[in-house]
Amino acid sequence: MSVSPLAPASFPELPAVGGVELATLAAGLRYEKRADLMLAFLAEGTTVAGTFTKSLCPSAPVDWCRRILANGTARAVACNAGNANAFTGKHGDTATELTATTLATALGVEANEIFLASTGVIGETLPTEALASALPVLAGNRVPTSAATWQEAADAIRTTDTFAKGASASADVAGTAVNVVGIAKGSGMIAPDMATMLGFLFTDAAVTAEALQSMLSDGVEHSFNRITVDSDTSTSDTVLLFATGAAETPLISGPNDPGYAELAAAVSAVNLDLSHQIVRDGEGATKFVEVRVTGAETDQAAKIIALAIGNSPLVKTALAAEDANWGRIVMAVGKAGQRADRDALAIWIGDEQVAADGIQLDGYSEDRATEHLKEDHVILTTDVGIGSGAATIWTCDLTHGYIDINAGYRS
Amino acid sequence: MSVSPLAPASFPELPAVGGVELATLAAGLRYEKRADLMLAFLAEGTTVAGTFTKSLCPSAPVDWCRRILANGTARAVACNAGNANAFTGKHGDTATELTATTLATALGVEANEIFLASTGVIGETLPTEALASALPVLAGNRVPTSAATWQEAADAIRTTDTFAKGASASADVAGTAVNVVGIAKGSGMIAPDMATMLGFLFTDAAVTAEALQSMLSDGVEHSFNRITVDSDTSTSDTVLLFATGAAETPLISGPNDPGYAELAAAVSAVNLDLSHQIVRDGEGATKFVEVRVTGAETDQAAKIIALAIGNSPLVKTALAAEDANWGRIVMAVGKAGQRADRDALAIWIGDEQVAADGIQLDGYSEDRATEHLKEDHVILTTDVGIGSGAATIWTCDLTHGYIDINAGYRS
Repeated sequence: MSVSPLAPASFPELPAVGGVELATLAAGLRYEKRADLMLAFLAEGTTVAGTFTKSLCPSAPVDWCRRILANGTARAVACNAGNANAFTGKHGDTATELTATTLATALGVEANEIFLASTGVIGETLPTEALASALPVLAGNRVPTSAATWQEAADAIRTTDTFAKGASASADVAGTAVNVVGIAKGSGMIAPDMATMLGFLFTDAAVTAEALQSMLSDGVEHSFNRITVDSDTSTSDTVLLFATGAAETPLISGPNDPGYAELAAAVSAVNLDLSHQIVRDGEGATKFVEVRVTGAETDQAAKIIALAIGNSPLVKTALAAEDANWGRIVMAVGKAGQRADRDALAIWIGDEQVAADGIQLDGYSEDRATEHLKEDHVILTTDVGIGSGAATIWTCDLTHGYIDINAGYRS
Repeated sequence: MSVSPLAPASFPELPAVGGVELATLAAGLRYEKRADLMLAFLAEGTTVAGTFTKSLCPSAPVDWCRRILANGTARAVACNAGNANAFTGKHGDTATELTATTLATALGVEANEIFLASTGVIGETLPTEALASALPVLAGNRVPTSAATWQEAADAIRTTDTFAKGASASADVAGTAVNVVGIAKGSGMIAPDMATMLGFLFTDAAVTAEALQSMLSDGVEHSFNRITVDSDTSTSDTVLLFATGAAETPLISGPNDPGYAELAAAVSAVNLDLSHQIVRDGEGATKFVEVRVTGAETDQAAKIIALAIGNSPLVKTALAAEDANWGRIVMAVGKAGQRADRDALAIWIGDEQVAADGIQLDGYSEDRATEHLKEDHVILTTDVGIGSGAATIWTCDLTHGYIDINAGYRS
């Protein structure tokens, strides 16, 4: 599998985060000759926030995380790549319990402080015996965070991803510098509300679980919940944010506390960066596409219209062909089911205005629109002429590469 | 463009329908060397029923038909292929008016009794001068209905269709034999509620407009509104049903009248046949896929789940690969947003049961499932374990052919 043409030039140089240790292991659960288990061990007192798939058939690890999230504390997060442990009935629950208790013993913590994520094929049972012998080895491999270990961790959680995904931001919390570092995986089955995408974010700030959840939920709504590759939603989507407190900042317990806004901005920046990297690794993607909708009845209506455009196979194939077939945008606006004034519609491809007042603009240059479509980063803007609701979502084009990957792939 | 591998062996031998005359013309509006205008001239007293796209950006002809449908009577229907006359602002209305008034003069009827449909590229204006000179020629070409003229009419309304679509059924209305004949076009931008698909049905029974509308609406809900090729909904979808009364049956004015049930069944049969032909001509399709959902909370919930399965790019690419990757069905059930009991889910591929009680069945034979997937007509059945709601929808697989057609095509 060659690396996506939209990939960043290199994996970023991620800073250390106090209170986090990382480990990886090539356990051979599905893949050969690569790490497929990842563990982050967290300092005592670490708080946690999470958001999960809206699928009504969630995976066993999602069920597990939802159950223990209420405690608000975490001592570890572990992830296996290659098998989603989804739709595996009672066996799925047995596998999550075994993983958590085995790791708890090895790490000397409680099982219900260990968060779990699995990604890969749905419907196949996890090989529990192999897991049981691999997990203590994994636990013993842990080392401090560093640029190198973050990259190893990001590599270990990949499935069809063509590149490892990481991002960081820093913030000033009441005079103390803190870091937010995140790693993520995902390239297909990507749609709001989250798709087979996993994101693990870590900060050394001290934050209550409640304040952390508020930051994460805001950030996810404007990042992971605004990307789509193929409109398919996974059973396993999980984004977790951990705060170790190792930087010894004053405790942030609500939006009015010093540093809340700064840290929330850093969390949002990491979420946005990681979510864009997932789109840039969209299966078969050759274009990173930003869909902006303005003039809708509400922001939510604008988001629905933007997703209708971004999920339309006809829009996405036209983008792949660099074809300024803007009639397909009109079609997608029409099918979105949200109020739009056909005779006030305005459309731009890049900064070339295509249509105004529901008809092609005099002087519209298809050549200029096509020039923009040849770029890597395409911007489509539509004003639907009703109100002041606005939203932006990100997607990619639909190419032969998507078919190649998915009409053969079994994780 | 080669003919779809799922096409019927030949165009059916359609019977004559009294009170209908057909005409076609190669007007050169977009295509060369083929008819691109179709006219059906209808006897005095013909009643009409219609269903249209739910797009909020409908084409000018859809607006026109909706406006005149309230009269309940029709003297003609005309269709041009290659240009949808959609998103063409005031010019679109001017073009529909010109078409109707020009034909009205040529045929000696009222403009508001002439139904119009356009299919093809969105956003380009219709060449009104060329139309104005072509329409009187078209009107002069009309001939009685016959197997040959039905086929010519079905050919003239094609755009990306790889084969002409026609179907017929007969019914006994209070002792008198009547026919229902339909022609249709459509192969992409197909999704409920109707996609660029046009259907024109004709019967020689005598039926009030109200009774006719009731028959058509029922028929469309269980046929055209249950097919999907790419989840995209066109601006132009139109199905019209005309009853000329030429067979001199007693007038059918409601569901309790003699012959209503028989004629409604014939109308439904023609709708179903035409809608399946559209799926069989789905862009790039190599499989005709029937998705059955049972055990849902309501029939409507079952339909939503079935469409989530049928529209999933991941399910559709797995079908193209003949890969029994049933985890993707679970994923689609989960994202449908309707109640489903994950731990009671049962799945069949053909008659091979894959899963029961939310887990892969002991003794499931992937080989047998794969054998079924190699067939042209694939049946996927899912019981979601909640209630007794059931629905069936029809779709096709997602292949390189779809990308080829849509990442290059401008009608």
